Amino acid sequence: MAAKTGPLVIVGGAEDKTGECRILRRFIELGGGKSAYVLVITVATELPIEVGTEYTEVFGRLGVADVRTFDVSTREAANLDSAVKMIRNATCIYFTGGDQLRITKLLGGTRVDAELHEAYHRGVPLGGTSAGASMMSSTMIVEGEAETNPRVSIVDMAPGMEFLDGAVVDQHFAQRGRLGRLLSAVAQYPHHLGLGIDENTAVIVQDHVLEVVGQGAVSIVDAGSVSYSNLDKVTREESLALCGVKLHMLPEGCGFHLRDREPIPDFKNWTRKQNKELSS
Amino acid sequence: MAAKTGPLVIVGGAEDKTGECRILRRFIELGGGKSAYVLVITVATELPIEVGTEYTEVFGRLGVADVRTFDVSTREAANLDSAVKMIRNATCIYFTGGDQLRITKLLGGTRVDAELHEAYHRGVPLGGTSAGASMMSSTMIVEGEAETNPRVSIVDMAPGMEFLDGAVVDQHFAQRGRLGRLLSAVAQYPHHLGLGIDENTAVIVQDHVLEVVGQGAVSIVDAGSVSYSNLDKVTREESLALCGVKLHMLPEGCGFHLRDREPIPDFKNWTRKQNKELSS
Repeated sequence: MAAKTGPLVIVGGAEDKTGECRILRRFIELGGGKSAYVLVITVATELPIEVGTEYTEVFGRLGVADVRTFDVSTREAANLDSAVKMIRNATCIYFTGGDQLRITKLLGGTRVDAELHEAYHRGVPLGGTSAGASMMSSTMIVEGEAETNPRVSIVDMAPGMEFLDGAVVDQHFAQRGRLGRLLSAVAQYPHHLGLGIDENTAVIVQDHVLEVVGQGAVSIVDAGSVSYSNLDKVTREESLALCGVKLHMLPEGCGFHLRDREPIPDFKNWTRKQNKELSS
Repeated sequence: MAAKTGPLVIVGGAEDKTGECRILRRFIELGGGKSAYVLVITVATELPIEVGTEYTEVFGRLGVADVRTFDVSTREAANLDSAVKMIRNATCIYFTGGDQLRITKLLGGTRVDAELHEAYHRGVPLGGTSAGASMMSSTMIVEGEAETNPRVSIVDMAPGMEFLDGAVVDQHFAQRGRLGRLLSAVAQYPHHLGLGIDENTAVIVQDHVLEVVGQGAVSIVDAGSVSYSNLDKVTREESLALCGVKLHMLPEGCGFHLRDREPIPDFKNWTRKQNKELSS
């Protein structure tokens, strides 16, 4: 079988770090379990020490022997041999929250960026929460107004780190009322599926298929089916009309095929069938 | 032509009362303009004097000569001749916000209730904002959690006043992140369309067709197209899975055919065509 790209563990922010830690535990299992070497990348946050310490403690509590944090405050530092080596040695890599633009600005186009893609293509799991979730896609939501109806002006987009194809990620989704801004994003680029990930909820993506894990749900917004949009008629500030958007609400146990744009209601059963087909 | 039922003006709360007052102005136009006799029903609120005074002032400023307020605190009062007479004389009737259960508990099954339906069937416009919007339908959302993913337990439903067929109304929609609770409602009763009305936004419903007016948008959630739901498998507290919900975001200028469950992107043009067909 061809080498698989590493699973992406994309977390909607505020993942449980004191209780069962289901999402982080799952991430660690994918990354080697107790023998994992977890690299926590704190580049997104302006509090790298505090955030790094928190994750070091959590992963330690989950039984991981080797947890290290990685931070750079200049692009030069992201081109050093020592930085590249840290990425190369990790068995899984986790991006913390903060500001997604810090990740793309500090790491984009550096040797660390290239090494992260190398790792991803070797099958190393990459995780990210909040800002670390947003940056996963080719085009990312940088910021936007919440709790309002769709308009072009309410969402700022920028190029992301390009691990995830064909989708735009939004996080803290239900908790911050972000349907309007996610719709504003996919209305402009209906090729992209909109993934609205709730807090303490994650998608695990591999081979264009995602599985939902955690407490909340993932709202998948598919503008591919839109029968009418007024995008070409309105200004950036005027309200968008969108008819015929497809919406899927997927809690834990469900999946989604990103390329086929089809929900998988029973993910375990679907996986079992796929494996049977492969082995027969 | 057969007599039309009165238009319903269903407002998502927080309608403009100091600026252009587009929604309230439109309501007044439907109800007779300057010669209207507006009856403001404050039964939903526990501050009937304050709320009544506010609407009396606004409608006065909009040029209406005759504005009266109507309040009852007992069901007996809603059975008095004098109460019935007030409803009978009004050329349009507006329900304020408050608690929708107060409306159904105090007025439901009284002579005032019957008279309101008489008025509606005579073509008298009925308006309602916030709680006054929720009570319009046959089944109404009483309360629910906001900013969370769909679960049966997060929404409490009760019988409404039955002016609007085939739909459930939620208000303050984008502003309070209520997608989850509206989905929870329609998942249980997919016969109902979910109308999520933003603040300072309204739908004007007549003959199973609605027109959107105001600043925000109306989110129409159609669970009729759902291809999978786990409703029969989960407890009230567990997360709902819903695949294939249809979602329409409709700002001012758009309409929707409630019976055909079809959006009308250009409402004015559609109305013109309908009128031509009728006259040809």
